[in-house]
Amino acid sequence: MNSKNYLNSLQSYTEADLKRVDSVIIAHTASRAGHIPMLAGHIISAGGKRLRPLLTIICAKLCGYEGERHINLAASVEFIHTATLLHDDVVDESSLRRGISTANHLWGNKISILVGDFLLSQSFQLMVKDGSLKTLGILSAASAVISEGEVMQLVSSSNVEMTEAVYMEIITAKTAELFAASCQIGAVVADAGQKEEDALRSVGMNLGIAFQIIDDALDYAADQQALGKTVGDDFREGKMTLPVIEAYAQGSEEERAFWRRTMQENEQRPEDLQHAISLLEKHKTLHYAMQKAIAYAQAAMKALTDFPEGEAKSVLKDIIDFSVERAY
Amino acid sequence: MNSKNYLNSLQSYTEADLKRVDSVIIAHTASRAGHIPMLAGHIISAGGKRLRPLLTIICAKLCGYEGERHINLAASVEFIHTATLLHDDVVDESSLRRGISTANHLWGNKISILVGDFLLSQSFQLMVKDGSLKTLGILSAASAVISEGEVMQLVSSSNVEMTEAVYMEIITAKTAELFAASCQIGAVVADAGQKEEDALRSVGMNLGIAFQIIDDALDYAADQQALGKTVGDDFREGKMTLPVIEAYAQGSEEERAFWRRTMQENEQRPEDLQHAISLLEKHKTLHYAMQKAIAYAQAAMKALTDFPEGEAKSVLKDIIDFSVERAY
Repeated sequence: MNSKNYLNSLQSYTEADLKRVDSVIIAHTASRAGHIPMLAGHIISAGGKRLRPLLTIICAKLCGYEGERHINLAASVEFIHTATLLHDDVVDESSLRRGISTANHLWGNKISILVGDFLLSQSFQLMVKDGSLKTLGILSAASAVISEGEVMQLVSSSNVEMTEAVYMEIITAKTAELFAASCQIGAVVADAGQKEEDALRSVGMNLGIAFQIIDDALDYAADQQALGKTVGDDFREGKMTLPVIEAYAQGSEEERAFWRRTMQENEQRPEDLQHAISLLEKHKTLHYAMQKAIAYAQAAMKALTDFPEGEAKSVLKDIIDFSVERAY
Repeated sequence: MNSKNYLNSLQSYTEADLKRVDSVIIAHTASRAGHIPMLAGHIISAGGKRLRPLLTIICAKLCGYEGERHINLAASVEFIHTATLLHDDVVDESSLRRGISTANHLWGNKISILVGDFLLSQSFQLMVKDGSLKTLGILSAASAVISEGEVMQLVSSSNVEMTEAVYMEIITAKTAELFAASCQIGAVVADAGQKEEDALRSVGMNLGIAFQIIDDALDYAADQQALGKTVGDDFREGKMTLPVIEAYAQGSEEERAFWRRTMQENEQRPEDLQHAISLLEKHKTLHYAMQKAIAYAQAAMKALTDFPEGEAKSVLKDIIDFSVERAY
């Protein structure tokens, strides 16, 4: 399914709920400190896919939920994600996200840190309003795990000896955990039972891993305009991701010296990115990453097996397909 | 009461509880990401006064509480405070806190941001473990208000036209709100009733305002070694605090030009700090700030009136006294 069909199928099914999520988000970024709604509005309206709140909405519907609680919880999830983005962009020194200047680039690091803190607190206020200690437990745990993943990533950045196992641990923590929590709380609001909860958690976890592997691969492959980000960002930051980890593992001594110079010692020349891409192509490591992502997407599909057929399941499958097919 | 007596009176009364709070803190900073316990341990063991968890412990006892819940909640409060300190030091570009190098100075801004996020999430996990939606509501609201206060402070930094009213709004949000919440949840765990809750909230709010006014005044007055911080930090950052706001308001045109050059345009010469202090002395604005702090401390004392006499009340009074008397 191409990205246009994906958007169409989503829009008709979730548009009304997503609009309500957006209203909750706007209402909860109001503050006497005028920079808070300004920065929050900038990053939230910057054309994100709202993937995580979508997962909460669709998983709740998949479990037959017909109430209202999923709206506030979906907004909570988006707040956690947005807080993470604001802090990530400071940590990564990014100037562009989805083709638009980042908040730290426009208004500075300091305010981005503080507004991120505000949004994380607002996320918990929304959960308190919802009143379920269970979802509070799931999302506060996810939030802690995300920070752990970000710390692990920062500490192992520029380490060319990083293994695939460590890479998997990092992306599971920094990305997949929140996908898993977003899906799981859909089952929790629907009071769907432990089996459904575990299954949807597994859908989210596998989807999140597939999503992040593809995201990292696209950094070496995508058309910048289509992706809305700068190709080679990870390379310039010396951030070790799966294609480079594999290329280093399989590389000749000369190739390893290249990776050490560019990624570890951060000594880069203008032609280096092109050479890096040619090494990934030589060892077929972008292909390797895609295959790995496809396997995780299949595991996500499999975890869906026992749920009833219908529009919710069909849209969720489209999202899983899209998460890997956007790479082609 | 001098600072030594203050510490003695506290130690005998709260030592056992504070040790248990420290154990909870250490247990909840454990992480597979080794930098998390390292940074958290550094800032938590850096000789802080543990004032906020102390308030929770003492207020619970003052309300006759004899259970165990106040320990985890006191640790929650300290985690929120520690997360704030880590992010504050990044925002303020501080290199020294209580005489010890800051985490951002030792390990960099990036890791300080991420570990702050982790600690804030851990704070909410502890509250979830405690299981009271009421304390979750109080502390998540406090956490959001703190960020608002920090944003307001950042935005009005270097604005010499800042009024005392705005200053009061900022310190109430960034400091007093967490003092108020720390006291209030002591009453909440003890199930003490709305009147006691409101009274202890008022104790914390007034104490927090007094504490911050004195802290800001000490930045122009204290012996660096005794204070464990660098005199003139706020001046160098162009941070407008009460003594300067008043000196500007009362200043001649020539004096106002001095404040504009040093605080607003941040054009400072080595002799400027000494001249700034002499202007504060000329207009007696440090004295003015002290008097104001004393009035808030008296309001905190007054809010304590209806509570039964005893060791808890006596220790709480000592803390209120200490918060202003440390300036002499």
